[in-house]
Amino acid sequence: MSDLTSSLLTDLYAPIADDLCAAQRIFDDELQSDLPFVNEWCDRVRSYRGKMLRPALLLLAGKATGQLTKEHHTLAAVVEIVHMATLVHDDVLDEADERRRLPTICATAGNVAAVLVGDYLISHAFHLCSSLDSQYASRRIGAATNEVCEGELLQNRRSGDDQLSETEYFDIIRRKTGALTAACCELGAFSAGADDMTVRAMYDYGMLAGKAFQIVDDILDIVGDRRQVGKTLGVDLSLGKLTLPTIHCLAHADESTAVAIREIVRGEACCTQRRLREWIDETDSVDHAVSTARDHVLRAIRRLDAVPPGDARSSLIALAEFIIDRRF
Amino acid sequence: MSDLTSSLLTDLYAPIADDLCAAQRIFDDELQSDLPFVNEWCDRVRSYRGKMLRPALLLLAGKATGQLTKEHHTLAAVVEIVHMATLVHDDVLDEADERRRLPTICATAGNVAAVLVGDYLISHAFHLCSSLDSQYASRRIGAATNEVCEGELLQNRRSGDDQLSETEYFDIIRRKTGALTAACCELGAFSAGADDMTVRAMYDYGMLAGKAFQIVDDILDIVGDRRQVGKTLGVDLSLGKLTLPTIHCLAHADESTAVAIREIVRGEACCTQRRLREWIDETDSVDHAVSTARDHVLRAIRRLDAVPPGDARSSLIALAEFIIDRRF
Repeated sequence: MSDLTSSLLTDLYAPIADDLCAAQRIFDDELQSDLPFVNEWCDRVRSYRGKMLRPALLLLAGKATGQLTKEHHTLAAVVEIVHMATLVHDDVLDEADERRRLPTICATAGNVAAVLVGDYLISHAFHLCSSLDSQYASRRIGAATNEVCEGELLQNRRSGDDQLSETEYFDIIRRKTGALTAACCELGAFSAGADDMTVRAMYDYGMLAGKAFQIVDDILDIVGDRRQVGKTLGVDLSLGKLTLPTIHCLAHADESTAVAIREIVRGEACCTQRRLREWIDETDSVDHAVSTARDHVLRAIRRLDAVPPGDARSSLIALAEFIIDRRF
Repeated sequence: MSDLTSSLLTDLYAPIADDLCAAQRIFDDELQSDLPFVNEWCDRVRSYRGKMLRPALLLLAGKATGQLTKEHHTLAAVVEIVHMATLVHDDVLDEADERRRLPTICATAGNVAAVLVGDYLISHAFHLCSSLDSQYASRRIGAATNEVCEGELLQNRRSGDDQLSETEYFDIIRRKTGALTAACCELGAFSAGADDMTVRAMYDYGMLAGKAFQIVDDILDIVGDRRQVGKTLGVDLSLGKLTLPTIHCLAHADESTAVAIREIVRGEACCTQRRLREWIDETDSVDHAVSTARDHVLRAIRRLDAVPPGDARSSLIALAEFIIDRRF
């Protein structure tokens, strides 16, 4: 993360700075094991903590709609552990070598250890969640992780398929990314005692912001700077995954380019990031994807009309805008 | 499973036959997805359902110590889904091709799909568990799965290590197998309203029975009949995993055999199941492991003194005895 971005996020997170620290302490406490090497893995996982987007969304949603409590801190730690688990398993699935400029767990210790570390994190997330008085959050987070897994399964099922449509792409990202960010915002508001309408508005905000975040992630995979993004890039197409920019490019490129892209998706040809970048530039496909992400962000911000003005609400607006401006 | 074994288990499970059916219905309902191919994966997972040991332990422990309720049925489904998740991920870790005479998910659809199907199952297990009124079960199951993951991580960490001691082996199996069977019995009794002493006795019974079960599993990996066991065998040593029979063999074999075994564990040499079988026979290491398992079973049965006589208690005794007599 650049110093500039880091200081921007520090500003955005100012209304919840202490709460985020409290959540980090709970995160650290939960992952203590009597096995020293497990703690070493968890230290590595901790160093993947970047934008803390999900806990920040949960805490800001709570602060914007009511009073933050100890329950929010626990929930913020839970969603970050869930997110870390998905990162560790994603790196196995994507055969990624680098995350946040550090070697991934699968690259360091192999896929077997990475699968197990991911399982360990999922288990701890639910274990921590069950320390709360009410089952409500466990139920909602369980429902969200069910959807996240379905999204990943769907993406895997359709990998290598050169016919993936925009509608199908949106179905995948709604499940794999939107479901968890939506649950974060919903639970933040619910635990703050917000009324049903506000809770629903926060859910929608989280869903739209999450989908926008994923669209930008998919754009960065093509045009991002590896040093800035800090992870292996240019992998989606080689792994047979069509995303919004490449689906748009396929629909608007000339016949020979479309044939070449379809061959890459089907695993029949290789592709350099530079060549892909040229194709994408010719069809203005990044612009199309950015404008779609921006549209999601605007709709997300509009849902904040249900929330009274204040620091936390302003941060939620700025955070949504940051999602499309980010370079990492 | 042979017809003989199947009819034996039918007898043992007679006191909870209807409850086991109720648990299976909840299992099936929980795993319904709007994605047809996900349901197909879950059908495959369902066909791995074999002895239903964990739900049976939970239900028998409940019946033996009090009254079975709807909560028991849900919990029985939860522990079976957790167990299925561990099987699916285990098959990835062990590179296994066959389970219950069917191709494993990783063999059919690749490791990526198998990792995701396992995640989907874990998520659904916790989601289902959170439908209960109390958080107690979620907390205990979460604690057990934390331990299961630690056991698997420890086993993975020590794979290739030709110095693994019996003490370390027992630490691994206590976590990876004992923790969940102990939680099954503990929760069965707790939810039936048993007093603390009885709950503790059932926990001990489950822990001892679970460890015995794992010892026998490790014996069958060496001397089992693939057609009867229905899964890939002879993998432990080749994957660098020392287990009770091979640890005993190493300590009692002549120097040249010990050197050969250590080379296999370190991945420096290959081994046929037949050769391993000869070494193991020479040192009576299967007898040693069987007698250790039997000792665990006897201690488990002794803990049932805390439970009043009845059909369910008799089944728990017979089930513990079955664990060491089984051939699959």
